[in-house]
Amino acid sequence: MPLFRLDASIRTEGSVSRAIADIVEGTWRHDNPEAKVITRHVGLEPLPATAWAESVVADRTHEEAMTTSQKAAVALAATLTEELLESDAYLFAVPLYNFGVSQHFKAWVDLVLTDPRMASRAGQALKDRPAVLVVVRGGAYGPGTPREGWDHAVGWMRRILEDVWGLDLRVVESEFTLVGVNPALDEFKDLAAQMRAEAERLAAEHGRHLVGALTH
Amino acid sequence: MPLFRLDASIRTEGSVSRAIADIVEGTWRHDNPEAKVITRHVGLEPLPATAWAESVVADRTHEEAMTTSQKAAVALAATLTEELLESDAYLFAVPLYNFGVSQHFKAWVDLVLTDPRMASRAGQALKDRPAVLVVVRGGAYGPGTPREGWDHAVGWMRRILEDVWGLDLRVVESEFTLVGVNPALDEFKDLAAQMRAEAERLAAEHGRHLVGALTH
Repeated sequence: MPLFRLDASIRTEGSVSRAIADIVEGTWRHDNPEAKVITRHVGLEPLPATAWAESVVADRTHEEAMTTSQKAAVALAATLTEELLESDAYLFAVPLYNFGVSQHFKAWVDLVLTDPRMASRAGQALKDRPAVLVVVRGGAYGPGTPREGWDHAVGWMRRILEDVWGLDLRVVESEFTLVGVNPALDEFKDLAAQMRAEAERLAAEHGRHLVGALTH
Repeated sequence: MPLFRLDASIRTEGSVSRAIADIVEGTWRHDNPEAKVITRHVGLEPLPATAWAESVVADRTHEEAMTTSQKAAVALAATLTEELLESDAYLFAVPLYNFGVSQHFKAWVDLVLTDPRMASRAGQALKDRPAVLVVVRGGAYGPGTPREGWDHAVGWMRRILEDVWGLDLRVVESEFTLVGVNPALDEFKDLAAQMRAEAERLAAEHGRHLVGALTH
């Protein structure tokens, strides 16, 4: 069965979240050379900004009274939902943006949740299926740093992926990715390299978590 | 000077966040019958989903090499920024959606932060100006409830409004707004009415916080 992969980076090149997710996918691919990957690039090809509200309103509207754009929004939510339901392993690569969640990832979650099969009232639609979340932060947010507590995204992403949809989630966090880009951070080069190596090691390890899904 | 007001509800009618914000605005208006209100309905008239990324890329591009859509994104960020800078009091009405931040409010913040005048490196651009944030949640999220800790939006909103932009912020939180809408919550009618009355009282009080700005 396919791997579902979502990328939320808005970079066309040099995306660290994409590079780390590539390692996860590579581990999975090694044991599944023929399997399909379903991709959603929500950062580079964002969903329409009106789709979610259109789908919410459509949900309260009789089908014959729906507008064309409401029908399109419902159909898009159904397509996104089918991409999830037909997969059996999941990979999400989502950078921290402005101390919060990617707007495009939130837009994708909101729209998916309008599909009755994925709504929280439907129970955990993806219960116990294996997933990896790759999170990338430009700075450092660990205990004792000035930005401790400024990551307001991971908690919400885990809430949706684990608590609402029931995924069996592993998280790879990569920090200090602006070292080498922002000269003010040059003193942290060794630490950043060490963090990157650790994230890459973990990415390969968590890739095996996805492989495990197929041998159940 | 004007009041800047942002609404993130996707409802065309029956929005509780809008009703509570109306009370805040009414208090402010009482003492400022002639002053202008600058409004942004980011829920009903969302910003384009591609604007933020276009503006980020434009920031790294020479002006003569910018595409038309990049120029439009930069111009939109500048317009949003001017709406903020020319105001001296602020009102944000933002519902909790799917346990997280409004995608449309996040899109607005992301785009505003691309303007060099509002970027975090510019310092606190709105330092000490008075603001009210109205937050509305359909269920109850207080201590001891099953959804304690499931509000993943307010922490991030405060981070941006208070820590990044320096606003002197008051928050009005209204909960259980789905009581009367969702029959499963009917047993909480009295509690919900009590919470709503308290939110309305606080809204009127915090409206005076905005008025205070004009007498500095």
